[in-house]
Amino acid sequence: MCANLDSEMEFKFAKRMSEIKASEIREILKVTEKPEVISFAGGLPAPELFPVNEIKEVNRIVLEENGAKALQYTTTEGYRPLRNWIAERMNSRLRTSFDCDNILITHGSQQALDLSGKVFLDEGDVVFCESPTYLAAISAFRAYGCEFIEIPTDDEGMIISELAKRLENCKRAKLIYVIPDFQNPTGRTWSIERRKQLAEVSAKYGIAVVEDNPYGELRFEGDSLHAVKSFDVTGNILCTGTFSKIFCPGYRIGWIAGDKDIIRKYVLVKQGTDLQCNTIAQMEISKYLDLYDIDTHIEKIREIYRKRRDLAIQTMENAFPENVVFTRPNGGLFAWVELPTYINARKVLEKSLEQNIAFVPGGSFFPNGGKENTFRINFSNMPEDKIVEGLTRLGDILKDFV
Amino acid sequence: MCANLDSEMEFKFAKRMSEIKASEIREILKVTEKPEVISFAGGLPAPELFPVNEIKEVNRIVLEENGAKALQYTTTEGYRPLRNWIAERMNSRLRTSFDCDNILITHGSQQALDLSGKVFLDEGDVVFCESPTYLAAISAFRAYGCEFIEIPTDDEGMIISELAKRLENCKRAKLIYVIPDFQNPTGRTWSIERRKQLAEVSAKYGIAVVEDNPYGELRFEGDSLHAVKSFDVTGNILCTGTFSKIFCPGYRIGWIAGDKDIIRKYVLVKQGTDLQCNTIAQMEISKYLDLYDIDTHIEKIREIYRKRRDLAIQTMENAFPENVVFTRPNGGLFAWVELPTYINARKVLEKSLEQNIAFVPGGSFFPNGGKENTFRINFSNMPEDKIVEGLTRLGDILKDFV
Repeated sequence: MCANLDSEMEFKFAKRMSEIKASEIREILKVTEKPEVISFAGGLPAPELFPVNEIKEVNRIVLEENGAKALQYTTTEGYRPLRNWIAERMNSRLRTSFDCDNILITHGSQQALDLSGKVFLDEGDVVFCESPTYLAAISAFRAYGCEFIEIPTDDEGMIISELAKRLENCKRAKLIYVIPDFQNPTGRTWSIERRKQLAEVSAKYGIAVVEDNPYGELRFEGDSLHAVKSFDVTGNILCTGTFSKIFCPGYRIGWIAGDKDIIRKYVLVKQGTDLQCNTIAQMEISKYLDLYDIDTHIEKIREIYRKRRDLAIQTMENAFPENVVFTRPNGGLFAWVELPTYINARKVLEKSLEQNIAFVPGGSFFPNGGKENTFRINFSNMPEDKIVEGLTRLGDILKDFV
Repeated sequence: MCANLDSEMEFKFAKRMSEIKASEIREILKVTEKPEVISFAGGLPAPELFPVNEIKEVNRIVLEENGAKALQYTTTEGYRPLRNWIAERMNSRLRTSFDCDNILITHGSQQALDLSGKVFLDEGDVVFCESPTYLAAISAFRAYGCEFIEIPTDDEGMIISELAKRLENCKRAKLIYVIPDFQNPTGRTWSIERRKQLAEVSAKYGIAVVEDNPYGELRFEGDSLHAVKSFDVTGNILCTGTFSKIFCPGYRIGWIAGDKDIIRKYVLVKQGTDLQCNTIAQMEISKYLDLYDIDTHIEKIREIYRKRRDLAIQTMENAFPENVVFTRPNGGLFAWVELPTYINARKVLEKSLEQNIAFVPGGSFFPNGGKENTFRINFSNMPEDKIVEGLTRLGDILKDFV
C-alpha cells in the first residue's frame, strides 16, 4: 500500500465527500459499548422486549413452508403480503386508500430518506426542515448536494407561517422534511392545526413532503393525531414507516408510502441502489403479523417506555438545575434539554463521559450549525435503576456548569 | 389524489430521474414468474441448492445464544467475525493482507456499486467499463450523473491499450469498473496479462478501480487466476464480493474491500444511506461459516452448474444456426450470444416469449447503446430437461430469423 495515499487520492473523490462527516451519535455509540457506561445517547429500543422466541418460530415456519422462495431474490417492491398489511395499517390510521402498490419496502426508514434524496434532489436544491431535525436525515439529504432551510419550531411543531414566508422566495425548493410525532430530537408532537396547515402549504406551493414517522406507534397517553398525510389532497405527501421501533431494528425493514406514480420512481431508484430488501426478513415479519398480535406487543413496549419516560422526567426535575429546561414527551424515545446559552453541551459531555455517562450534544441536529447549549436524552434503552442513577449524576455535573 | 399528478409533479424530481429506466431484466423477470415459462433471463442461483436446513439451525442457535444482539442495531461497518472471515478468505486468494477494517458489509454487491458511485462520482465524471458490462452497474453509476466510456473487449478481457489511450485524453476520469471473472453478461474471464496491465494503468493514471467479483468462486475447470487486486501496489483497487451466489441472495449480504482510508469513506456514506445491514443475517452467515464447510457447499453448486453449462453449450451447438456464435464460459452463470448483425434480439425475444421462452437482449448491457444483435443466456436456474427443451426451441426460432 502507498504510504501517502491520502494526499494522492483526495482529489479524486466526489465533491460530496468533503461534506460527509461521521455521525456524532454513531461515534459516541462506540464509546458506549463499554458495559459500565450509562448511555442516553442512542435511539436504541429496549432489547429485552424483542420477541426472540416468536422470531425463532416464524423463521422455522417460513423455511419449512417455502425455504427456496425465502432465500431467493424477490421483487424490488418487496414481499406482497407485507406490503398489503402495511397498506391496511396506514389506511386505518391515515384515512388513505392505499394498496400494496403504494408501498415500497426499504432498508429501514433511513433508506426511505436516502431514496427521497435520490428521487428529488439536485445539487443546490433546498430542503426545508424543522430546527432542530433528525441528524441522519441531514446526512441522507446532504449527500445529494442540497441546502437546508431550517424553520423555527415551538411546542406545537413547525411554525408554518414561517415556512410559507421562506417558500415564497425560494426558487430551488424541492422537499419539506418533518417528523410530526414525538420528533427526533425534541420529543415534541405537532398540533392538529399545524398538520393541516402544512398539507395546505404543500398543496399551494406544489412541494413534496416527506413525513417521517418512526415513533408514532409509541404513544404513552392521549389520542393519536391524524397524520399530515391524512390532510393530503394532491398526492404530494410521502410517509415513511419502520418495524425498527415496534418489532426490532436488526432486520432493517421499513417502508415509504405515497402516490403510486411517485412510489414507482422510488422503485426504479431502488433497483439500481441495492435491488431489493432481505427476502426472508420480509417473510418472517409477515408471518409474525399473521400468527401474533403486534398490538399486544406494542402495548408492552409502550408500558415499559412510559415508565422509563416518567422516571427520566421525574429524575431530571429533581436533579437538574432550575435554569435547565427540557421537553416532556407524550411518546417516542427522546427528550430535549436546553441549557443556559453560555454552556456548551459538548463540554458537559466531556465531563460526563469521564463519569461513564453519555448523551448526544444538540448542535449536530441543526443542519446549518446551531444551538450548542442543547442535548438529547434517550430514555428507552436503559433499565430503570440506571436511568435514575445516570440522570442524577448528570444533574450533579450540570450544577458545576450553571 | 390528483388526477393529473404526472404533469403537475414532473418538474420537481431530480434531473437523474429522466435517465433512470426500469431494469429490462427485472421487467422480463415479472413475465417469467409464470411457471410454464422456461427462463434463461435472470441471474438467479438454483434454489434447490440453498442450505435451508442449515439456515434453520443457525437461526435457532444465533437467537438462543444472543437474540437481543442479533435483533438490535449494530455498527455500520458490519459484524466483526464475518468481516474477519471475509478478510482471511480474500488474503488467501488475492495476496492481500486485509483485516476486518478493510471490509464493509453491504446490501449485496449491488450496494457496493451504489456506494462507489456516491464516494467517487460527481455529475459529468467518467466511468470506464467493459463493452458490454453489467446492466445494474450502469444504473447504479448513472444515478450519480456520470458518463460512460466503453472499452472494447475480446476473449482475454478488456483491451487495456485502448483503455490507456482513452485515459490519456480524459480530464474527468474517475473510476474503472470491471468484472474479470466469468463476466456478466459475456461469461468471459480475463487473462492474467490483462489483469497485470490494468493494475499498472490504474497506478499510472491514479484512477480507482472497482473489481466486481460475484462469480469468481464458481469456476468449473482450470485454476483460479489472481485477481486484479493482487497486482495492486497503490491501494487504488477496490473489490466487491457477495454471499448471493455461494450461499443465498435473499439475505442481501455482500461487501466491499480495499484500502482502509477509502473503506472509511464508504462507511461514512453508508451511515447516511441506511445505517447498516441486517444484523441477524450477518450473524447467521457467520455462524454457518463456523459450523459448516462452505467449500463443500460451493463444490456442490459448481458441479450442478457445470452440468448445466455443459448441457446448455451442447444444446446451442446442436440447435443454433451456424452463423450464430456464443461464448463457452469456464464458470459463472452466463453465456453470451451474437447473432448476424441484421437480426435484432428484441424481435427474437418477442417471438420466443410467445413460446414461453425468455432471455435478456444484449442492447442494455452497452451503456451508450449498442449491439442489438446480442443476447445473454443464464444457465444456472433451470433444471436440465428445461435447458435442453428451451434452447432447442430457441434454436428453431432463430432459424426463422437467419
